[in-house]
Amino acid sequence: MALYGGIEAGGTKFVCAFGTNPEDLRDKYRFETTTPSKTLDKLIRYFKEQNKKEKLSAIGIGSFGPLDLDKKSSTYGYITSTPKIEWQNTKIYGRIKEAFAVPVGFDTDVNAAALGEHEWGAARDVSDFIYITIGTGIGGGGMFNGDFLHGLLHPEMGHIFIPHDKKVDPYEGICPFHKNCFEGLASGVAIKDRWGKAGEKLRIDHPAWDLEVNYISLAVINYICTLSPERIILGGGVMKQKHMLPRIHKRVKKLLNDYIQAPEITDNIEKYIVLPELGDDSGVLGAIALAKREYERNNRTQMNVYNEKKS
Amino acid sequence: MALYGGIEAGGTKFVCAFGTNPEDLRDKYRFETTTPSKTLDKLIRYFKEQNKKEKLSAIGIGSFGPLDLDKKSSTYGYITSTPKIEWQNTKIYGRIKEAFAVPVGFDTDVNAAALGEHEWGAARDVSDFIYITIGTGIGGGGMFNGDFLHGLLHPEMGHIFIPHDKKVDPYEGICPFHKNCFEGLASGVAIKDRWGKAGEKLRIDHPAWDLEVNYISLAVINYICTLSPERIILGGGVMKQKHMLPRIHKRVKKLLNDYIQAPEITDNIEKYIVLPELGDDSGVLGAIALAKREYERNNRTQMNVYNEKKS
Repeated sequence: MALYGGIEAGGTKFVCAFGTNPEDLRDKYRFETTTPSKTLDKLIRYFKEQNKKEKLSAIGIGSFGPLDLDKKSSTYGYITSTPKIEWQNTKIYGRIKEAFAVPVGFDTDVNAAALGEHEWGAARDVSDFIYITIGTGIGGGGMFNGDFLHGLLHPEMGHIFIPHDKKVDPYEGICPFHKNCFEGLASGVAIKDRWGKAGEKLRIDHPAWDLEVNYISLAVINYICTLSPERIILGGGVMKQKHMLPRIHKRVKKLLNDYIQAPEITDNIEKYIVLPELGDDSGVLGAIALAKREYERNNRTQMNVYNEKKS
Repeated sequence: MALYGGIEAGGTKFVCAFGTNPEDLRDKYRFETTTPSKTLDKLIRYFKEQNKKEKLSAIGIGSFGPLDLDKKSSTYGYITSTPKIEWQNTKIYGRIKEAFAVPVGFDTDVNAAALGEHEWGAARDVSDFIYITIGTGIGGGGMFNGDFLHGLLHPEMGHIFIPHDKKVDPYEGICPFHKNCFEGLASGVAIKDRWGKAGEKLRIDHPAWDLEVNYISLAVINYICTLSPERIILGGGVMKQKHMLPRIHKRVKKLLNDYIQAPEITDNIEKYIVLPELGDDSGVLGAIALAKREYERNNRTQMNVYNEKKS
């Protein structure tokens, strides 16, 4: 049976694991992100050792970005214009591909998490959906008509512009590119910068949460009107605040004002906007799902070549 | 050779035509939208007569909405919650299907227009793209991974929320559902309501156009960040103002601030955000493209059934 390696490549930590699914996650290796060469050497050593014991069939990488995902590009599989200066223009897919002679799946961290939720979690029963993470930063990915949205590059859903009433919230926003885009107003970093305290330390009745509910709801409505998804999964540190989700349900319904006539929203919003089901492993499980998908694709291609030769 | 009928079903007018492509549009019949039964009777009579002379192979309908596009629904092909009271819950696809024993393609007016641009116009060379119309109302459609976005329903791109600085623009917005959503602030109806004059009558240096450029650019950025399209087509009456497009290019670049590192945007935005190429026929040609697609799908399905029986 095929065994997969997964790499959750984050700006502050890397998580590596191998296994086949959430019930069979055989090991987890977590370490701090340092320089590209040290970090990549470390993870390659980890999988090399593993590979000696039990052979990996494929590896998946869900990475922080932005990424070059254009397979015709000479820098395919690179991290590109990240604000983490040292990591700009880092070859990541290529390093792994060279080190292991197996199929390697590569995509954004949020697309990987979305795929994991589709394979084993909150999006098992739908095909067109998005996964948004609201943590230190804000990002989103998802699948439509059977694949990720890779037309130009990949979605950067955290950077949409939403209404910002400065009378209610005079905070300027912290996105280095856009100041008060969604991420600039509602990310964990923005909460900490605005209130001088991390979200985890703010009481449930702190005014921070009213703002947060409003901004997240506005963004969710924009995704609904633009993508018409069958489900929206909201993950990340901010969504660990248990009071948030029911308040977002209410606010989205109020702001949408019954415009979208779909019972999924008008009658069952609790099943429409949901939390992820894979918990803290969603990142690395998503990477394992990427590995699985790449492995299966590869097999299908080989099967087609075989069938063509036969006929 | 297959001959197609196209129906552009609009809230104020219907346009019917038949032909095979933009160079072969054999007739056009345009009439005012009245009651559902009178309007549909009229167009059925038109195609019945045509059908006697030369047989139609398929018909396509691009309709105002919202629509029920769920093929498993008992009201598939109905216009649903439109503000045009008389037209609420109107069976449209079913009426045409019953009257003509041919394949019938049915979708939103904007998805139809998008498909037409993909087949013969400004999106010929890309596969993932959107078409936005900014006219009396604002709507958007498009294709991703080979199909429209039909996860839940269909996109309602005009109803996203964008920043609205009331110090610069104290106008409240005219959307009956959301007041100051994109459509509520930037549609033709909003322009007329805000300034007391239709857009066509406002001079090129009227402050209306600065607002318009800004709102359209903000919406375009939200679509880019959410969908990552390969191209954006901006149509509709407002975009007939020739000064608009170059100003939108500039504003989008300024607001995006080089965050999306794709040469299509950073170096060639003139080819990234473009006008439609099918002009005033884009609606009915889109409907003909829907007919063509449905006809070809139908043939493929029949071919598969035939091959299965054979083997």
